[in-house]
Amino acid sequence: MQQLAHRLDRLGTETAFSVAQAAAAWKAKGHRVYPFHLGDINISHGPAHRGRDEQGDRRRLHGLLPGPRHPPAARSARRRPGLGPRHRALPDNVVVMTGGKPVITKFLQAVMNPGQEVLYPNPGFPIYESQIEYLGGTAVPYRYLPTNEGFAIDLDQLRASITPNTVAIIYNDLQNPISAESTAAEREAIAQLTQEHDLWVLSDEAYFETRYEGVSSSITSLPGMLERTVILYTFSKKFAMTGSRLGCAVAPVEIANVLSTLNTNDESCTTHYVQWAGIEALRGTQEPVRQMLEVLRERRDAACEIVNSIPGMNVAVPHSTFYLFPDVTEAMDRMGYTAVGDFAAVALHQTGVSFCTREHFGRRQPGEERQYIRLAYSGIEVADIREGLGRLNEWISAA
Amino acid sequence: MQQLAHRLDRLGTETAFSVAQAAAAWKAKGHRVYPFHLGDINISHGPAHRGRDEQGDRRRLHGLLPGPRHPPAARSARRRPGLGPRHRALPDNVVVMTGGKPVITKFLQAVMNPGQEVLYPNPGFPIYESQIEYLGGTAVPYRYLPTNEGFAIDLDQLRASITPNTVAIIYNDLQNPISAESTAAEREAIAQLTQEHDLWVLSDEAYFETRYEGVSSSITSLPGMLERTVILYTFSKKFAMTGSRLGCAVAPVEIANVLSTLNTNDESCTTHYVQWAGIEALRGTQEPVRQMLEVLRERRDAACEIVNSIPGMNVAVPHSTFYLFPDVTEAMDRMGYTAVGDFAAVALHQTGVSFCTREHFGRRQPGEERQYIRLAYSGIEVADIREGLGRLNEWISAA
Repeated sequence: MQQLAHRLDRLGTETAFSVAQAAAAWKAKGHRVYPFHLGDINISHGPAHRGRDEQGDRRRLHGLLPGPRHPPAARSARRRPGLGPRHRALPDNVVVMTGGKPVITKFLQAVMNPGQEVLYPNPGFPIYESQIEYLGGTAVPYRYLPTNEGFAIDLDQLRASITPNTVAIIYNDLQNPISAESTAAEREAIAQLTQEHDLWVLSDEAYFETRYEGVSSSITSLPGMLERTVILYTFSKKFAMTGSRLGCAVAPVEIANVLSTLNTNDESCTTHYVQWAGIEALRGTQEPVRQMLEVLRERRDAACEIVNSIPGMNVAVPHSTFYLFPDVTEAMDRMGYTAVGDFAAVALHQTGVSFCTREHFGRRQPGEERQYIRLAYSGIEVADIREGLGRLNEWISAA
Repeated sequence: MQQLAHRLDRLGTETAFSVAQAAAAWKAKGHRVYPFHLGDINISHGPAHRGRDEQGDRRRLHGLLPGPRHPPAARSARRRPGLGPRHRALPDNVVVMTGGKPVITKFLQAVMNPGQEVLYPNPGFPIYESQIEYLGGTAVPYRYLPTNEGFAIDLDQLRASITPNTVAIIYNDLQNPISAESTAAEREAIAQLTQEHDLWVLSDEAYFETRYEGVSSSITSLPGMLERTVILYTFSKKFAMTGSRLGCAVAPVEIANVLSTLNTNDESCTTHYVQWAGIEALRGTQEPVRQMLEVLRERRDAACEIVNSIPGMNVAVPHSTFYLFPDVTEAMDRMGYTAVGDFAAVALHQTGVSFCTREHFGRRQPGEERQYIRLAYSGIEVADIREGLGRLNEWISAA
């Protein structure tokens, strides 16, 4: 039989799914599992889900849309606050997709040639690295340094990584997995670098509205940025619609046209009635979103408090996302682990606490010595957070 | 600003959408339009659509699936009759996707290297040609010859087009746009060629169940074919679910694993509750499908009768799909047209009849002299078929 294509040798994946499988297997054996590995949300957002059914039924919208452009959701998605100069985000700038993820590969297909370099956050969403390399580019990681407030981008390293061959940067403010958030100065520094070196920008704003204090700000609100930036917008996190698969790109028209043609080639359009669910979510009362954030804030506070009481673990309280990325170096030393994957595997079986580690978010960078895990609190109740992390605490404290 | 990626120079699209736009523009000016350009279906399939809502609500399945493998729809889709040796299509062979279209690009990504050749039907679904070339391959067309029954693949041309560099063939039995259907002998000849030359096969079976007489047969039911073939299955045509975006690949496990990883990279999973709609459609009564086919059969008969009464137009009555692909060479001669696109444009404005032409289905092949148009009868009632094609008849008869 013929061989498979060589490009597959460069294809990565989201290895976090294997953590879910290990947790499920352990649970199937009758053990209690505390799921901190999920970026999924166990809080229902009523109106969005009801909107799907009501609108879909009322309008009987079961036919094919004429492609990804000018669909109903595009008209609504562009009204989102915080998009930068809002009057410039016209329907022609919006391309509706089946979630935020498709924006990553399509952005790269649109702007990157094989052999070119793309800067990406590491640790970061693993599909960045996978798709840059799958499409024949070179994935150049930039790193974060721990601060009292959380993490800051190592701007010196970032600057030193730019070459004449660099074509784009992926920027994920309000970051998964580490919950880093740029200061205004950091955001401006990045904007300046992209203009000095004429780089395209993918601004992954998946967690733009998932925040507990303060106000989010898009890099596209800075002068000269809208024309070089593609925003990744998703309904998944804000509206607890992960399984609905609805998102969009907000892009300069030239790029939006390309993304639209790629959509026509790849999947025709995004499910008709799912788009109506998104409209209902955007236009309806935002009270459920506020309530969901209240629930998440309680979870964050409970989780941070316990994590910081565990010997050898510490984390700054993040203002956004639903992830904690505690430094567990001392806890691992105390327990005698050198590989964070081993630490996680044993923790699951000793305590039932299931989580991803730094290893699930891109290749480790040279000189990287600290150890981190990611605790997602989007899919677990406060009582279970307390019980699960309490067990983790007991296990580590007893060592 | 940086340039866009070179690969975009090789990207095609579905130009048929421009016909829809021209028709909409003409209609917006107050003219009557008879839509024969749509491959969309204006017949509701109640249970499938209700199933979506009932199942989605009952199970509150709004979260992310753990990827495209083993999802609910995979378990049901494999039960479909006519898949070949049915006991061999296990859940591991099924990868659920957002429609049938994604199977095309993902199949090619899995089996074709840049510089390799892929055989594809021409005229045929335009995304074949687009994606082969976009991914760096060479799209090698094979042609059909008119017969009394419709069309037959030119096996001599096909055979002569195979080189050591050929890696795959796209085979679309029950064909869009020409409604060609293989005889058993033709199907066997193609199967034999693929085994002699060790080719991968994409068997596009989008219209497998859209037939009015006889029984469909998959090339995978022939010995030695299941292990080299990826089936493109879609819920769009059979269940009038085009706008729901639900389909799957049925593939050898090795390829299914690759398609699954590509899905994880590109879109995570297919909308959760849409998969439940698909299950409901597959498991529920098939009476609505039968009724829809009855409606389509009436339309086919009405359309064929009138087309064959138009001077200079003729078509064999197809047993499947919802397309007619009449030869209009003499009609065009009579009217003084040499470009079929001009003929279509003027026909819209003179008669209101809107249709695609041969030009929307891949690049014209050398030596191709006959002229064809495509009339889709899936989105137009019998009364409108009679009225619209009646006007076309008057216009051409008067010339």
